[in-house]
Amino acid sequence: MNGTLHDDRIAVGGDAKQRYYDGRGYGRPIGGNEIELSRVEAAHLLFRGDLEAVVTDTGATLSFKSFFTQSARTDSGFAQRFLVYADLRDRGFYLSPALDGWPGEDTNEAVDFTVYPRGKGPTDTAVKYRITVVGERKPIPAAELAGLVLAVVDEESELTYLESAEPSFDGSSLYDPETTIEGALIGDRVICWDAPEHVYETGFYGQPLSGRAAIIDGAIQLSLVEAAGLASIDRLTLTDITDSDDSYDAIVARGREVEGDRFDRRLTVYQTLRSNGVVPKTGFKFGADFRTYNNVESVSNLPHSEHLIRVVSPEHAFDPKELSLDVRLAGGVRKRMVFALTGANETITWLSVSRLTP
Amino acid sequence: MNGTLHDDRIAVGGDAKQRYYDGRGYGRPIGGNEIELSRVEAAHLLFRGDLEAVVTDTGATLSFKSFFTQSARTDSGFAQRFLVYADLRDRGFYLSPALDGWPGEDTNEAVDFTVYPRGKGPTDTAVKYRITVVGERKPIPAAELAGLVLAVVDEESELTYLESAEPSFDGSSLYDPETTIEGALIGDRVICWDAPEHVYETGFYGQPLSGRAAIIDGAIQLSLVEAAGLASIDRLTLTDITDSDDSYDAIVARGREVEGDRFDRRLTVYQTLRSNGVVPKTGFKFGADFRTYNNVESVSNLPHSEHLIRVVSPEHAFDPKELSLDVRLAGGVRKRMVFALTGANETITWLSVSRLTP
Repeated sequence: MNGTLHDDRIAVGGDAKQRYYDGRGYGRPIGGNEIELSRVEAAHLLFRGDLEAVVTDTGATLSFKSFFTQSARTDSGFAQRFLVYADLRDRGFYLSPALDGWPGEDTNEAVDFTVYPRGKGPTDTAVKYRITVVGERKPIPAAELAGLVLAVVDEESELTYLESAEPSFDGSSLYDPETTIEGALIGDRVICWDAPEHVYETGFYGQPLSGRAAIIDGAIQLSLVEAAGLASIDRLTLTDITDSDDSYDAIVARGREVEGDRFDRRLTVYQTLRSNGVVPKTGFKFGADFRTYNNVESVSNLPHSEHLIRVVSPEHAFDPKELSLDVRLAGGVRKRMVFALTGANETITWLSVSRLTP
Repeated sequence: MNGTLHDDRIAVGGDAKQRYYDGRGYGRPIGGNEIELSRVEAAHLLFRGDLEAVVTDTGATLSFKSFFTQSARTDSGFAQRFLVYADLRDRGFYLSPALDGWPGEDTNEAVDFTVYPRGKGPTDTAVKYRITVVGERKPIPAAELAGLVLAVVDEESELTYLESAEPSFDGSSLYDPETTIEGALIGDRVICWDAPEHVYETGFYGQPLSGRAAIIDGAIQLSLVEAAGLASIDRLTLTDITDSDDSYDAIVARGREVEGDRFDRRLTVYQTLRSNGVVPKTGFKFGADFRTYNNVESVSNLPHSEHLIRVVSPEHAFDPKELSLDVRLAGGVRKRMVFALTGANETITWLSVSRLTP
């Protein structure tokens, strides 16, 4: 059977509706038994040998090879979309292009394909994945990612699926020191020479100033976000500054000095997590801003940390390779990668991204 | 016993040479039994209680706490160097500051400490590690890293040691297609509709254009670096361009179009590896430019890939957090992280970085 190409759509007659659409989820009906196919769908049917050729307006007869080449040369995203379409078909899914008026239609412009649950097709209403196809060189605005599956085609045409969702934190670590401790602002950290043991042991604030050979009893070092967090709830004052508001200001000023605007964004995230019962600690060893613990009862009995958090600005665009790096690393250490999108002192949009095998 | 502070050096008399220098590798002799200590060394002796106090020019007597605070406030790197010094001492090493005229003296300005092998000290000549101490917020010029151990102090005062060395590749994959194949430049890849099977199966060039359900026999997709690599050795011409030099130029032009200067740098690295018998394939899933195989006999019997490679410019400065991320990920997948420093068409400086537990 042949299709007829006109305006980027391929019309197929005969028993096409029954054969391709009803039976296998290709195209959309356009009256009677006729259907029209998008270029990607037509290419896939040619590829499988289920369609013999596509005939153009000028009467040329195109095989898979020539149709594929022509399509890829007129539409720079075609080859990538074809690879993803074919892969999802191979995995046993029916899917439709998310074009206006098509069964896969989606309000989000970034969506390329709507994938139905296994065993379902375009005549059902259920949606399994909403897919955005990108090449590895194309930055993706963070704000566009929510609820989508990103299908990244790398330079060697291998596919990586990344699913983004809203993370749920389930924090129960609502520790309060219940006393105001005193610290000295020294460089880019705060040293408390005489903090109650529970500040570290139960609250998991700071790090003891100790080695294997010696301990200065009660001395802990706080990071600047930890110190600002404690000062903001009136639990820390700086040496020589008895007012906690002034102490907070002094710590934040130091934070901006060493880190610029990023400090405010990171502090917003730190405080939000703490106030939700989640304990953020440095994620440096994982290349992230924070690793987080939902339930800290004591440091000597520390649970596995659940999330890695990277703080980015709301305008951030992900480089797919960096995203792949973050997500791969998080998966390797059994944590979920979360991005906190925020400007200074603004609300936070949370986005978790994980690898998906469709 | 007390020390006397003058010009950032702490002189200690009595039996100090025997007690601190000969016996435990602190300081340097300055005549008779007297030694002088750097601030970090003196702070460590105070911290351990092995020195009682440091007396200043003005007669003030400083304990560990006041001496530490004073030192950290006059020298922004002091607290970080102290943490690293104390950690290495805890791990059983003797080490000296790398100051001119001191036992740890080093020609590289970036070195902070010279660490001796366990059981050795400043009177021996052997060196175990040359340590550079940095905070997590300080970028490190790539060119300075070779042969050093980077001790990164993160914001919570935890330490990460990263060792850099020259990697050795031991490649034996000297495949040559021995025929010129033809490909079509389509977008950011080249499709060869009719390549001999061994191009992929033995040479590990490209990726078959196939799915589980169908295969176009002999069709492979090449990345632009793979295609340029094959064209550069006269093994690929583009459809409609029969001269391989012109084909090479056309592929490189497309590479620059989609990737800018980075394409030339990546191509230099790709070609150098191939000509050394090492097979580079995309490192996208690991967030790197390439993963490499030393010995590919056939794709169906592929060995573990040994290295992850990131291509950076010679002027690149590493953000310690990004470096930590790369090295951590590579370690997690049992590969070594390698940075290839190169401008376009220039020589390459190779730098492998791995995590170290001293």
